[in-house]
Amino acid sequence: MKITTVDWLPVGLGVFCILVVTAFSSTPAAQYSAAQPAVAAAEIGSDAPQVTGKVYETTLDNGLKVLVKIDRRAPIVTSQVWYKVGSSDEHGGITGISHMLEHMMFKGSERLAPGEFSRIIAAQGGEENAFTGRDYTAYFQTLAADRLAIALELEAERMGHLALPPEEYVKELEVVKEERRLRTDDNPEALTFEQFNAVAYVASPYRIPIIGWAGDLESMTLDDVRTWYQRWYAPNNATLVVVGDVDPNTVFALAERTFGSLPAVSLTPTKPQPEPRQLGEKRLRVQTPAKSPYLLFGYKVPTLGETPDSWEPYALEMLAAVLDGGSSARFRRELIRNQRVAASANARYNAVVRLPGMILFSGIPAQEQTIAALEAAMLTEIERLRTEPVTETELERIRTQLIAEKVYEQDSVFYQAMVLGQFETVGIGWQRAESYVDQLAAITAQQIQQVANTYLIPEHRTRAVLDPLPLDEAAAAQLRSGEFVHVR
Amino acid sequence: MKITTVDWLPVGLGVFCILVVTAFSSTPAAQYSAAQPAVAAAEIGSDAPQVTGKVYETTLDNGLKVLVKIDRRAPIVTSQVWYKVGSSDEHGGITGISHMLEHMMFKGSERLAPGEFSRIIAAQGGEENAFTGRDYTAYFQTLAADRLAIALELEAERMGHLALPPEEYVKELEVVKEERRLRTDDNPEALTFEQFNAVAYVASPYRIPIIGWAGDLESMTLDDVRTWYQRWYAPNNATLVVVGDVDPNTVFALAERTFGSLPAVSLTPTKPQPEPRQLGEKRLRVQTPAKSPYLLFGYKVPTLGETPDSWEPYALEMLAAVLDGGSSARFRRELIRNQRVAASANARYNAVVRLPGMILFSGIPAQEQTIAALEAAMLTEIERLRTEPVTETELERIRTQLIAEKVYEQDSVFYQAMVLGQFETVGIGWQRAESYVDQLAAITAQQIQQVANTYLIPEHRTRAVLDPLPLDEAAAAQLRSGEFVHVR
Repeated sequence: MKITTVDWLPVGLGVFCILVVTAFSSTPAAQYSAAQPAVAAAEIGSDAPQVTGKVYETTLDNGLKVLVKIDRRAPIVTSQVWYKVGSSDEHGGITGISHMLEHMMFKGSERLAPGEFSRIIAAQGGEENAFTGRDYTAYFQTLAADRLAIALELEAERMGHLALPPEEYVKELEVVKEERRLRTDDNPEALTFEQFNAVAYVASPYRIPIIGWAGDLESMTLDDVRTWYQRWYAPNNATLVVVGDVDPNTVFALAERTFGSLPAVSLTPTKPQPEPRQLGEKRLRVQTPAKSPYLLFGYKVPTLGETPDSWEPYALEMLAAVLDGGSSARFRRELIRNQRVAASANARYNAVVRLPGMILFSGIPAQEQTIAALEAAMLTEIERLRTEPVTETELERIRTQLIAEKVYEQDSVFYQAMVLGQFETVGIGWQRAESYVDQLAAITAQQIQQVANTYLIPEHRTRAVLDPLPLDEAAAAQLRSGEFVHVR
Repeated sequence: MKITTVDWLPVGLGVFCILVVTAFSSTPAAQYSAAQPAVAAAEIGSDAPQVTGKVYETTLDNGLKVLVKIDRRAPIVTSQVWYKVGSSDEHGGITGISHMLEHMMFKGSERLAPGEFSRIIAAQGGEENAFTGRDYTAYFQTLAADRLAIALELEAERMGHLALPPEEYVKELEVVKEERRLRTDDNPEALTFEQFNAVAYVASPYRIPIIGWAGDLESMTLDDVRTWYQRWYAPNNATLVVVGDVDPNTVFALAERTFGSLPAVSLTPTKPQPEPRQLGEKRLRVQTPAKSPYLLFGYKVPTLGETPDSWEPYALEMLAAVLDGGSSARFRRELIRNQRVAASANARYNAVVRLPGMILFSGIPAQEQTIAALEAAMLTEIERLRTEPVTETELERIRTQLIAEKVYEQDSVFYQAMVLGQFETVGIGWQRAESYVDQLAAITAQQIQQVANTYLIPEHRTRAVLDPLPLDEAAAAQLRSGEFVHVR
């Protein structure tokens, strides 16, 4: 099973990925059903025409929101339960607890033995998994469309009646610690990202690593996890998203039958913890055994979660695409092919998050090139965005490409559900997912230049350099990195 | 009333102070009663001889620890109640709450109107105040020795029966926000320290500003403060320290009569949150209107709270004194008088804290000198400590001076109580306060060199520079610094 954490984690050669899901991949581009206005549950009678691509919505009496989107291209369905809790709801001392709870959700409930959930889904020919992000924890199954009831029954069971057996907890905590070692401590770029992130934000909970600080995993208890489960796992803190060859009214009735008896809980929202304005550049160096040096820098920027009505997040996404949207984008063309200063160079920005965020730039110098040369070349490209508007030709190419990517993502039922769940859970509202592509397409060269000038300024920059120690020191340094100076 | 936060806050010309207490100051040096072995309460019969300078200890059934030290030089007494809670018990979202609760402790209890506590003490000719630190919140009164009962009755009343009136809370929160503006937001060096601290530590709760992040003060509620009070303010989380012209058995009986009926609470300790090993240097720049540039850097080091049996914290304190222990110390002699590179240059280290900490170096360049020149000169002095042992003559001078300072501090009854309260509350145990001076005196030149080589290394360094914006931009920048980029 691949249970994963989701974030702007650098993987491989400085490529960032928003989601590490190995069970699913997009099939080649197929016809995309363009966005349609949503239809409220009340409007659909049992014999109303049900339109492919529309989103149908209802909310149960206990607060569970249910979104259904019809896609009849294949007789399958994906079911996802999104909880509005992630690492940004945590705090020092219990970091990593959302992810730990995610693991425990597979370890038995009142009527299911540990692992039985996964065995049932597999026996039904389904795929299932889960992921934890900064703003959410989500669980999903993809099955033949006539098996949806099984998934919903199982999810309702673990939403209301998780067992949390102590012997499973002890084992699973070791699994999570090992996951941390593999994915962070022994991954120099991930380690650099973790430190970068904790330095860039001083007050925002986005500074918290999703996997948790190693020291917090050491002191985590089953009681902590149970408290977290009781606090956050309830129908009024969740969204059920179902996409596939289904009938909305049948799904709503099924949701009521499976989840309807679970009680709402009284929710105490996480404190906002706004990040103070950054007053000057921050820099850090991470010295650890590694094959290549690595540069990572970022600027504080707004997101749709903070300002859902603003055009700026869309402009920032377009800006990132100008630099790193495919093979003819500026970073690849200028830095890799023309100047040969970079082995890789990336720009990444995610507008669909709950709190204000960052736009990130990362790269690995080409052979015989330095971090300083790479950084200078990247900053020149950024400066160019501030002084010259992007040409209309370039912008049109980016629009076509970026929009095509977004459309391709929508090809699988999984990604369609993913987008709805994400927009809804981070507080933007799923409706905006429908207009997202249009909003991107409407961004002008002037707007891109404007966000570059407003946000890509040195005072708001944080910059990390991974400074590789020779690999022959690896053993010694790995020993060091596994210990704390300051364990109490 | 001067209610204060306690920390390594830079004040004035880069001078750090551990305690801002204006109500008290040391009188000129008087005879110091050298450390004596403690006597347990059980050992003192009512007619046992009571020795000046000894510490008498008991613990009430409800868990309140009571320490009494006799000092009969004047007919006065200081009474201090130390709670084991401070900003390092807080977390993102409720930072500043210990300090806010400290303020509310003066705003009425079951039998006392807001401000009545202070009026009673003043009417009795006493002085009183309180302070909040990273590891503790403490309240004190100094009175004529025959008025001790009044102080204890009042403290017991607010330990058990705080009123927390909503209208007082609303006013006092504004007072605290104003305190933050004056002491941090409008104080460029304090602002630099706050950012430095939040960057240097990534996981340790010592990254939290005692006054609280401005955004957390905005979202703080009276319910939060009440929960904090109920969680931490109880006899089994407190130490009563009484020093002065008193009789230990009388004090114990008085403590029993005033605090004895308060119930113990079930305490959930704060998670340890160890700081991961720092893997490389971190740097930050703070650009804000200011008169002078300012350099602040520090290295992660152990403390007595973490390793009470280690000699290293004593060696680090001696090391700081070599550089900055009076007018003939190296920083002043070399950097200010000889090289004229510094207008001020300081080294500060506090061993008596609960968690691992930092040794800090700060300075302001002399006129016509740069931050770079100052930093190079300071680093040269630090490098010298790593390569050459301190001479015996120099060490002897430092011993004499440092030890004299510690002895002078013990002159007032207030400081005697302060030292006992601090050692006890941060978990080192008050007994070690008695041997502290001897431990410092025993440190050798080799031990100083050894801690310099172990801890003062670039990989563990964090460095901040205050980069003054012209003061004519002050109005605009103050506007900026008062707002959040990221308020939700």
